[in-house]
Parts: sequence; structure tokens; C-alpha cells
Amino acid sequence: MKELRVGQIGTGFMGRTHSNAFLQVPHFFKTGFKPVLKSVCSLDKSLQEYADTWGYESIETDWRKVVARDDIDLIDIVVPNNLHHDIVIAAAEAGKMVICEKPMCMNMAEAEAMVAAVEKAGVANMVSFNYRRVPAVSLAKQLIEENRIGRPFHYNAVYNQDYTISTNVPMGGAALWRLDSKVAGSGVTGDLLAHSIDLAEWLNGPIARVCAKTEIFVKERLHVESGKMEKVTIDDACAFIAVFENGSFGTFHSTRYARGRKNHNTFELNGENGAVFFDLECPHSLQFFRYRDPETGEKTPDHIVGWQNIHVTNSEHPYMGNYWVPGTTIGYEHTFINNFAEFLSAVNEGRDYKPDMRQAMRTQFVCDMVLESARTEKWIDLL
Amino acid sequence: MKELRVGQIGTGFMGRTHSNAFLQVPHFFKTGFKPVLKSVCSLDKSLQEYADTWGYESIETDWRKVVARDDIDLIDIVVPNNLHHDIVIAAAEAGKMVICEKPMCMNMAEAEAMVAAVEKAGVANMVSFNYRRVPAVSLAKQLIEENRIGRPFHYNAVYNQDYTISTNVPMGGAALWRLDSKVAGSGVTGDLLAHSIDLAEWLNGPIARVCAKTEIFVKERLHVESGKMEKVTIDDACAFIAVFENGSFGTFHSTRYARGRKNHNTFELNGENGAVFFDLECPHSLQFFRYRDPETGEKTPDHIVGWQNIHVTNSEHPYMGNYWVPGTTIGYEHTFINNFAEFLSAVNEGRDYKPDMRQAMRTQFVCDMVLESARTEKWIDLL
Amino acid sequence: MKELRVGQIGTGFMGRTHSNAFLQVPHFFKTGFKPVLKSVCSLDKSLQEYADTWGYESIETDWRKVVARDDIDLIDIVVPNNLHHDIVIAAAEAGKMVICEKPMCMNMAEAEAMVAAVEKAGVANMVSFNYRRVPAVSLAKQLIEENRIGRPFHYNAVYNQDYTISTNVPMGGAALWRLDSKVAGSGVTGDLLAHSIDLAEWLNGPIARVCAKTEIFVKERLHVESGKMEKVTIDDACAFIAVFENGSFGTFHSTRYARGRKNHNTFELNGENGAVFFDLECPHSLQFFRYRDPETGEKTPDHIVGWQNIHVTNSEHPYMGNYWVPGTTIGYEHTFINNFAEFLSAVNEGRDYKPDMRQAMRTQFVCDMVLESARTEKWIDLL
Amino acid sequence: MKELRVGQIGTGFMGRTHSNAFLQVPHFFKTGFKPVLKSVCSLDKSLQEYADTWGYESIETDWRKVVARDDIDLIDIVVPNNLHHDIVIAAAEAGKMVICEKPMCMNMAEAEAMVAAVEKAGVANMVSFNYRRVPAVSLAKQLIEENRIGRPFHYNAVYNQDYTISTNVPMGGAALWRLDSKVAGSGVTGDLLAHSIDLAEWLNGPIARVCAKTEIFVKERLHVESGKMEKVTIDDACAFIAVFENGSFGTFHSTRYARGRKNHNTFELNGENGAVFFDLECPHSLQFFRYRDPETGEKTPDHIVGWQNIHVTNSEHPYMGNYWVPGTTIGYEHTFINNFAEFLSAVNEGRDYKPDMRQAMRTQFVCDMVLESARTEKWIDLL
Repeated sequence: MKELRVGQIGTGFMGRTHSNAFLQVPHFFKTGFKPVLKSVCSLDKSLQEYADTWGYESIETDWRKVVARDDIDLIDIVVPNNLHHDIVIAAAEAGKMVICEKPMCMNMAEAEAMVAAVEKAGVANMVSFNYRRVPAVSLAKQLIEENRIGRPFHYNAVYNQDYTISTNVPMGGAALWRLDSKVAGSGVTGDLLAHSIDLAEWLNGPIARVCAKTEIFVKERLHVESGKMEKVTIDDACAFIAVFENGSFGTFHSTRYARGRKNHNTFELNGENGAVFFDLECPHSLQFFRYRDPETGEKTPDHIVGWQNIHVTNSEHPYMGNYWVPGTTIGYEHTFINNFAEFLSAVNEGRDYKPDMRQAMRTQFVCDMVLESARTEKWIDLL
Repeated sequence: MKELRVGQIGTGFMGRTHSNAFLQVPHFFKTGFKPVLKSVCSLDKSLQEYADTWGYESIETDWRKVVARDDIDLIDIVVPNNLHHDIVIAAAEAGKMVICEKPMCMNMAEAEAMVAAVEKAGVANMVSFNYRRVPAVSLAKQLIEENRIGRPFHYNAVYNQDYTISTNVPMGGAALWRLDSKVAGSGVTGDLLAHSIDLAEWLNGPIARVCAKTEIFVKERLHVESGKMEKVTIDDACAFIAVFENGSFGTFHSTRYARGRKNHNTFELNGENGAVFFDLECPHSLQFFRYRDPETGEKTPDHIVGWQNIHVTNSEHPYMGNYWVPGTTIGYEHTFINNFAEFLSAVNEGRDYKPDMRQAMRTQFVCDMVLESARTEKWIDLL
Repeated sequence: MKELRVGQIGTGFMGRTHSNAFLQVPHFFKTGFKPVLKSVCSLDKSLQEYADTWGYESIETDWRKVVARDDIDLIDIVVPNNLHHDIVIAAAEAGKMVICEKPMCMNMAEAEAMVAAVEKAGVANMVSFNYRRVPAVSLAKQLIEENRIGRPFHYNAVYNQDYTISTNVPMGGAALWRLDSKVAGSGVTGDLLAHSIDLAEWLNGPIARVCAKTEIFVKERLHVESGKMEKVTIDDACAFIAVFENGSFGTFHSTRYARGRKNHNTFELNGENGAVFFDLECPHSLQFFRYRDPETGEKTPDHIVGWQNIHVTNSEHPYMGNYWVPGTTIGYEHTFINNFAEFLSAVNEGRDYKPDMRQAMRTQFVCDMVLESARTEKWIDLL
Repeated sequence: MKELRVGQIGTGFMGRTHSNAFLQVPHFFKTGFKPVLKSVCSLDKSLQEYADTWGYESIETDWRKVVARDDIDLIDIVVPNNLHHDIVIAAAEAGKMVICEKPMCMNMAEAEAMVAAVEKAGVANMVSFNYRRVPAVSLAKQLIEENRIGRPFHYNAVYNQDYTISTNVPMGGAALWRLDSKVAGSGVTGDLLAHSIDLAEWLNGPIARVCAKTEIFVKERLHVESGKMEKVTIDDACAFIAVFENGSFGTFHSTRYARGRKNHNTFELNGENGAVFFDLECPHSLQFFRYRDPETGEKTPDHIVGWQNIHVTNSEHPYMGNYWVPGTTIGYEHTFINNFAEFLSAVNEGRDYKPDMRQAMRTQFVCDMVLESARTEKWIDLL
């Protein structure tokens, strides 16, 4: 088992999920790698405590030093979005593998440079779209590949939260930089819809056309850095109609103003043979409507057809055989563990990993075009 | 289409459900009969208004006069339990068909006399166990008969309500005679568990042994007739373990003190091939776990097995083809319509109807033995 | 109680729901009227059987004769959409009250003429948007009026079905005229989205802007009248983004190709104080998120806040006190009973009934503009 | 932060959950301890691989050597039930802290000796009833303590699984010793009902009386050690009625033959002020019926009362503030992490931890009496 020497840049919430994943992968998966946490970098006052908690051997306050270290194989980027571009390019140039949180970056110009850099350097790279690795979502992918859904008619997605409704929520700083467009690039589009779009194109193929609408409900917020009320320029909410290349279509909706919804990341795909529905707030369940079996062509008898709640905790389900016993659930953090295991296995076996920067650039493109459509109030072709 | 001339005795809540059912049957079912509401009898002040609302041609205040009328074919008994015995016997002796609300009567002694009377007279008779006719419950019966459940291991039932928790609820009178044991015979055992037992034996065969526990939570209540606080002598709650003749077993639980449960009449049957779960608060759903198909012997693939929520509103589902279109629900009152349609069709075609008085006597026996077990704190054999 | 003499034109599925509602209203509501079914008109072979089943005193095959009869007070129109216009105008001119199924008509030109006719004649009129009268939907309206939702941010609606997926489903004729644009006017927009739009504007106020997309998945179908394959010209599916006058926005989605969805008519409204979600496949439930009480301004404590499944079967709930007892459900047909009771009460008391033709014309306008937006691929202002 | 040097005895499924918990506690909780995995013991061929995976510094094949080591502070016992007694006593005599998997042991005689040993030695000790530490279950405890449930009427519990239905499932060996009564002591009673009883008495106080029924559905199974068909002597299923000291009562049901139920560990407590329902298959949800607030005495208005699905993922919820962000779930393994954190914090702060061996002995007693009641077919008093 090879050591994989990790340098993490960033120590926020995502830093914790990544640190945990590095440590947990070898407990559940045989990837050929044993991650070793060499160094962690941030300007946060509690950096040493963070390093102690997760077992980083050293700390840095300048990310360029981490990138420059010879004893590091992989740079793990969990800083705000506006910093992704520079770090990825520097890491690639230093010949490091790269794991980068989503959204990939601020815009397509950045994305193109990043892809060019990692491809030129030939370094393994991933953008962390962890929700592909929810076992129920991976199972949806499997059902689609087994032709259990068949010709698709509709794909609808929602990603709703409710944590910015109060006008008293400030913006900026370590906690709420996602409300500051200069740091985040966009609002729900990059933060939430990027997930929805990544899943949609993974499950249902390319989106061909979009028409979008965004909204800012709270026009001004206190900026924690300036100490002043400033204009809000991110998209608080975004909805769009998407037509897929395969002829199906549907709606996407995302907001941080959906009172009652904490992490309501859902999708429904309706096809000729069947349908699936998923909701991240019930992550161990996949709803499946089994209308016709693709192998036999037989319809489920009319009197017993119905939506099945598949409790995705059997050994036969994606990833679940690596954990506990049938009937026991895993949680949010395991989507990162599963994802990192996929990445490390791919690296170990010399296979391409998806989504890499190139594939993530496509999601960046769709996000950019969604925002462009909202600005111009026009349909935009993506193909 | 023959006229079926009805005399109803009683004008409470159950009187309304029966009146409605008589009027609605011909709109949805071809039974060969057209019910005509000839007369209704009660001592209630609003009797004339009741008769006008439902279209009864005449009113009576002495039930013996209704039974004696030549122009009446069927006596419909919807009075409190302590009056069932006398009216059924008189009706039978007068050669009338009899529909009697459940529970059948006060005890086995009464039940035996009633069965003897209707059988001697040879009159068609039913006891109104309407929940057999919830489409989802009838579908459960069908799945069992199709061997989709297979060898049964467990049958568990609950019938919980919460309307008598307050000590301020009085007992007696037209509204709350169910709390007065002299009128009701028993508490939840006759009122609620009679339904659960009827369904259990219909779906899973005879109960062989029981061991029970009852409780009275509120020891005294104001009696609306005496105007005084009186000792409560009905069972507020009752639970029992039941072993079925087929070797399966489970628990039954019923109460009027289950805060949050309005009409929580549920059962679950787990067998070798599959399982079903039903809850009357979601009456249009049957939960079905399809483990193995009995015809082919094939197991559902491990990765797609799960509880199915069958929305029992397809034309192929019991009774539903007689109503509206797939996807539209029917309600509580339709269990009576379906039940009366079954009875009238059976009468019209000269078939036996179940549950008749003889079959209902069995349920009365189980109820009596449950209460006896609770009194003696012993297991009782029922076979 | 006055007699209300009804002439029904049309004997399809909707004819049955209306006939039932006329007969059932007086059993559950005091409206001042007793409907009497005087005459029913259609070209259907089973007309006499239909009349016998529901108790119509006479039959007609020319609707003009029904409209002309002196002994009829109200014309009930349950024929395909392309006939509404002529009958409504004739009925209004004859001074009859009018009940008309939705969608109101084929297009705005028709709608304007119809409104002019009924207003000129001064006759009471309604368009049958029955889903307002689902008790859970009426409860949602009540919660909004009680300010339990507060400032609205999002309103999203879905109305999905799956009955036309097979290419073998023909179009035209008595059963499937909804697939023939010459008779239906439009596809899901008039059939399903008209309901969603009516509810949306009732609950959340006027829609200010829309941008829509429609699709035809099966391009040709056998026409049962011509016996030939013909081009399908209705909208099989339609999605649109809607911005409301109050600043909230969301998506609408409707299709007959959503495998697994039978009658999936849902809406969710998220506001500052709370949120509601409804699904017609679970019609007795309203999901309510109670974030802040408007009277006291108090937030639900963070550790006990959650979506409540209100089982809308208490006496305190809209319409439910008129039926059975708490915990017992009503069904689809009761939405018509409740609606007719509202209409008859309004007529009896000299109050305006909503939605009347004028209000329904607004829904027609929104539908027309949705289809126009889909055709032109542009945003359209509705205000 | 003190090192806590751990010696683990046993390397099965439970060994993995404990190893993971030791490693994960310091990542999420400040307990004052940092567990160090010093040694692991088993006869399993893959022992070294297990040690490598989890980072144990050494391996042993004789548990007495682990107990004897001076460099170990805590003995973690995750072997089959028949070995608990000897190891606990030896560990206590060696002055080690003890963590022991449940059920505690084979019978009360063993339990008394174990309690005597740990109490004489004065060593910190726990029996691992991890389900108390599901956040939703801990929240239920909190709601009870806040008087949000009030006077209890009913407590009902179920713990159903379905993995031994096939007659081809063998018994014995490392995987299926739970089917061999010589090793397991009992069947579902010790394996599953011990959890239900522990939760019940924690949440609702002492059980005063029981009456039970057990069953063996498959009479003979292949024993993997003898290679022969042998008589099955464990309880495949067990149900009992329980009367609590506080006057409430209900039923308990457990089986490994409930087709469709994987880990269906549920309880419902109905009280005067409210009710809670929990199902381990949806571990992040607590269903709460908020009838009356204990502080104000105010009832929830009748039209908005309903079961709330509390998504137990807010920072305000038990344990959740230690993990990720609101809306993100944790899984099965976290119940062990939370539990070990509670234990280590108690040890660190010199507080008693519950459930310790003495409290677990009570659960052993209830289990023994349940089995005795099933054998004798009599009610048994437990107080």
C-alpha cells in the first residue's frame, strides 16, 4: 500500500469532510493507497487545533509553500471558489495530483486555464461532486444503465435550502463567503445547481438548451469584512427549464429561501420502462417505479405496481458492501469517502476518473449559461 | 331492478353512513336491487330532519312498528350494541333481511340466539365489517390468495385513537354511549379490536390462542344521563398476543389514548414470499414487499427490492373500476357502499354473504375470550 | 328548500361526478337548494341507462332543447371543451344559471364572449375548479390568510400523469378527445395546468410573467374517428417559469408522460413564516412547516421544528365537519360536492361565487400566454 | 489529551464498529482522551489484516494476554455472548476499564458476577447500547424530559428483521453464532429485544410486568461446526405485553422473519401532551405529535396539529453540532462514536456512565423474565 501524501489548503467545513475522507478510505476500501496528512494550510486562528484534530503533521499559512513541498503528492483544495484557479494551476505545474471542491471556479475563462494546466501536466485530478456517490444515487445510475428506466421523458431537479431567509444573516468572512459574489462567483447556481447539473448530465446526458430566471430576495446585507451594508449580487434563487439532448426535458429549481427545506436535493427521472426519485434528506432511500422489466419486456401486473422505497443498505447496493450490515445506514460524510475511494482506485489502476476538471468544466459552462440566460431573458443553446 | 324496501333503526353517525350507502349503491354497482328508504326510527328530536335529509318516506319512534311493517324487506340496525339482540331476533322472526352494525352484540349468549334466529328464519343477514371493503384491504386479501405472501410468520395489528384522553369527556347519551359498558358491552375490544380481529381472521385464518391485558386510564367520568361521576367499566385500552392456527403469531393493540392517532387501524402480515402493510389513515395505499413471485418462483433482484406503495386507485383494483378514473381516491363512506353492494349482489344471486351473523359470532367469541384472558391473566385456547 | 332544476349536457366521466354532486349536496350541506335532475343530453348510446342510474327524469339528444326548456334553472355543461362556448352563451341568453367544466373554453376570444354573455344576462355561473375544495387545499388557503406562511418566496407546482406514454393509445372519440386539439384546444395546459394555475393564483396571487416550453413526445396516433394515423397537435407536456406579482417565483410542470404518477397534482409555497406542500395523490394530508407563529411572532423551538403531516380530517378543517367523524377520509368526488355546495350557498345568499366565468377567463388567459410563450420561446408579461 | 490505550478482543462486525468509534471520537468530540489501539485479539485468520486496517499496534490470539498487558487501559469486548463473563471479570480484576457489547451475557447468574467484579474493582464500565445515541432517540429522551409527552399511556416497540427466513441459512461459526443458543444465550430476545428494552426503560421507566410468547419457525438448521443438521433452540421471534411501573403499557415484538424489515427498530410513546415515534430505518427522523406545550399549557390549534417529521440534523439536536452542517445526516457507525464519546467524557470528568454493567444487568433480567414467561406461559412481575 503506497503512501499518498496530502497537502490540504483550507480548513473550513469542506476541509473537515475531506480530512475525514482521507483517513477513512483505508478502513473501508482497498484502493492501493494510504493517505498521509502531511500539511494543512489556512489563515484561520485555529489552524493548529485543526491540524491536531485531524493529524496533519505540519501547518502552513502560505498555500504556495504547500504546493512547493517535495513530500506532498496531492493538493486538496477546499478554499473559497475565487482561489481555486490559482492553486490548481500552481499544483498542476508542480506535478501534484489535485482534488478540488466544487464549483470548479468562477467562470469559464478560469475553467479553461485550469483544464489546460492539469492536462498539460498530466496529473490526476478530480472535482468533488460527492453526491454521485450517495449509494442511492449510484443505484439510480445503475438502474438507468440496466435500461430499467428506458426512453426518458422528464428529468426534474430541485435543490432547496432555507438558511438565508433572515435579513440579519450577514455575508462574507469564513462562514458566509458563499453570499459574496466576489468570492463565490455565483449564489445557488454554483453552490447548489452545480450539483444538480452534474447529476443530471451524469444520469440523463447533455443538456441542450436552457432558459433561466434568478432572483435576489434580500437586496442588502451587512458585510462582515467591511462592517457595512452592501448590495447583494449573488443569485439567491434560480430556476431554469432544461431540454436534454435525448429529447427529454424538465425544470431545475434552487433557492436558499425555501422555508422548511434544509438540504432538499431531489431529482426525478421518468422513462418508458420506469422512474426514479431521490431526495438527499432521505439519502438511504431510492424511490423506484418498476413499470416494465427490460430483459423480459414484462409489465409489472397492474394491481401490484407502485413506487418502491428501496432501502439502499443491502450488500448488493453500491458501496454498501464496504461498510456494515444490511439495514444500517451511512451518512453525508461517506459520500466523500466513497468518492475519494473511487478517485484513488482509478489513480492506482491507471484509469481516468470522472468527474475530472474537464468534465467539471462542462458543468461550469452550463452554470454560466444559466446565469447568462437569466441576465438576457433568452433561451440559450448549449450544444 | 327490484326495489329493496329499507327500514332503518337508529339515526346516529352509523345511520348516516348506511343511509348514504343505500342511496349510492345503484349509482356505482349493478346489484339487481334499488334500495328505497321506507322508514326510519329513533327517539332523537331531529328524526324528521334526518328523514328529510336522506329521503325516508316515514318515521317511527317504536322499532317494533318498523319490524312489523309489511312494506319493508330489510331491517337496518344502527342503534347502540345493547339493542342489537332484540331487534335482530324480532326482524328475523318477521322474515326480514337484516343488516346489523358491529359489534354484533353484548356477549356470546346473545350472539348464539341471534344466529339461531336468522338461520331458523332463513333470512339474508350481514354484520357490517366495512373495513374488509377498503380497496387496499381487499387487495391485500387478493395478494394473499395469489400466494404473493406465502407461508405466514407474523400478523400484527393496531387500532389506536385518541379521543378520550381528556378526563372532561363525559360518557353515555347519544354521542358517547361507547364509553358506557352497560350500553356498549365493552370498550375498545368491541368497538375497535372487533374490526382488527375480523380482518385478521379473514386474511390470516383462525386465531388459536390469546393472552390479553386491558386497562382503564380514567377511572371515573361524568355520566350525561345520571349527571353524576360514575365508575368507568369499559376497557380504555387492550393489547393481546395472538397465535394463529397456521403457526404465525403477533400482537394486537388498541386504545383511545394514543395521542396523535385518529383512526390508526393498521395491520402487517409478513410471509415467506412477501409482506403487506395497511394503515386506515392512508386508506388508498397498500404497502407491499414483493420478495418472490409465486408463479415463477423468482426473487426480486436484491438491488431493486423494497416496499411498494401501491396507490390502490387503478381500474384493476377491487371496487375502483366502479368509481372514477385511475389516480382518484374514494373515502370512508365508500367502504359501506362497497359492502352493501357485495351484500345485495349476494342476495340477488342467491349466494351466501360473509361476514354474516354466524361469522360475526366468531369475532364476538374472540372478543369475549380476549376480555376473559385479561380478567384471568391467562392464555386461552380458542380452538 | 327550493328545487333547483338541472339540465345536464354531457354524460362522460365529468357528467357522473356532477350528477353525483347534485344528488349528494343536500345530504351534507344546507344550501337552501334541492337539486332535481330534470334532463340529461348526449348522443351516447347508453344515455337512457345513464339517466336511469342517476335519476334524470328525461333525456334529450339536442342540447338546444335542454337549454330551451322552461322547467330548467341550471345548465350543467360537461361536454368536450370545443362545445362550451356555444352552450354557455345559449344558456345565458335563456337566463339559466350555468355550471361549466374546466377548462372554460378553447381560447380567449371564446372566453370573452362567454363572460360577456353571462354578465349581460346576470346569471349565476361557475367554472368547476374543484381542487380548490379539497379540504387540505382549502386549509392551505386558510393558513395563508392567517399569515402562517408570510412573505412568499417560492411557489412551485406539478401536475403529472402517465396515461399516454404508449404509442398504442389512440386519440379522439368519447374517451380520448383530450388528445385531439381540435376538440380539447390544448393538451396538458388546459387539462392539467389550468388546475395548477387556478390554484396558484388563488393561493399566491396573479402571475406576472411566464416563460414556457412544450413538447409532443408521440408525434402520430390513430384517430378513432378517421381510423387513420394523424399528427398529434396537443401539448403532451408543458413546463414554465412563473414570476408572481408579489415577487415570488417558481416552476410549473405538467405531463402525461411521468411514469409512475397517476394524479400527481402538487404545489409547494415557501414563505417567511412557514410553508405548505400538497399532493393530490395523498389528498387528506397537508404538509405544513410551522416556522413562526404570526400572532405571537414566536419561532418554533429549533429542536422540534419539522414538516407536519396534518391529517385534514378534523371537524375544524374545511368541509370535514359536514361529513363523518375525525380520522375518516373523503374522496375525489367530494371536491365536487363541496364546490357545488359553495356555489348553491352563494346563489342562495345572493353572494358572488368564485371562480366564475370572469375569473376562469383569467386562467384561460394565462394558459394561452403559456402556450404562446412556448411557441415564441420568449418571456411574456401577463400584467 | 490523555492517551487511552485500548485492547480489543474480537474482530467481527462489532469489532469494526468499535475500532472505528475509537478512531473517530477525537475528530468530533473533546473527551479528554485520545484512544490508541494497542492490541487486538482473535483466532480469525485475517487478524493481521484487521490490525493493519484499523491500526492496531499488535495482535494476540489469547485474550488473557491482552488483559494481562500493563500498557492497556481499556478492554473492549466484541466476542460472542458466551465469552463476555470471563473476560469482563478478568479485565476488572486486572483493573482495566471495560466496554462490553450487548447483550451483557448469557443469564442473570453471569450478570451478577460481572457486576460484582467491576464494582469491586471500581473500574469504569459500559455495555454498548448504542441506539440511545441515535440523535433522534436522544431527542426523544429530551422531549420526554421537557414534559412534551406528559403522562404516558402507551409504549409500543418493534424490532424486526428478515435475514433467517430461508431454511438454507446455517447456524454457528463466526458469521451466524447468533443462531446458536449455546453461544448466543438467546435469539431475538438478547440480540434485538435487549435494545428495545434498554430504550424502553430509559425512556419510559421500569417495566413492572410481562407476559411473553416465543416461537421457533425453522426447527433444524445445518450447524457449520458440526456439519450436521441440528435442532434450533434460540427464539426466532418473541412478543410480549409489558406493563410499566408508571401505569402505561404496550407490546414488544421482535423477529428475524418479518419479510421486508431489515432493521425495523421502532418505538412509539403516546402521552397526554404529545407523542413520539421512531424507526431506525429512517434514523435521522423523529416523528413528534405536539398536542400541548408544557410551559404554556396551550394546545396546538386543532386545524394545524399533526405529526411532525423532525429532521434531526440541526445544530441544536443531540450530537449533531459535533458533525457537519444542518441538513446533513450521519449514519449507523456514529451511534458508536457518540456513545464512546459519552463514556470517555464521563470517565474524564469522573461521572458515572449509564448504561453500565449494573444497568445492563437490569435489561438482562427483563430478557430472562421474558423468556421465562414464554416458557411458563404466565405473567411475571419484575418489581
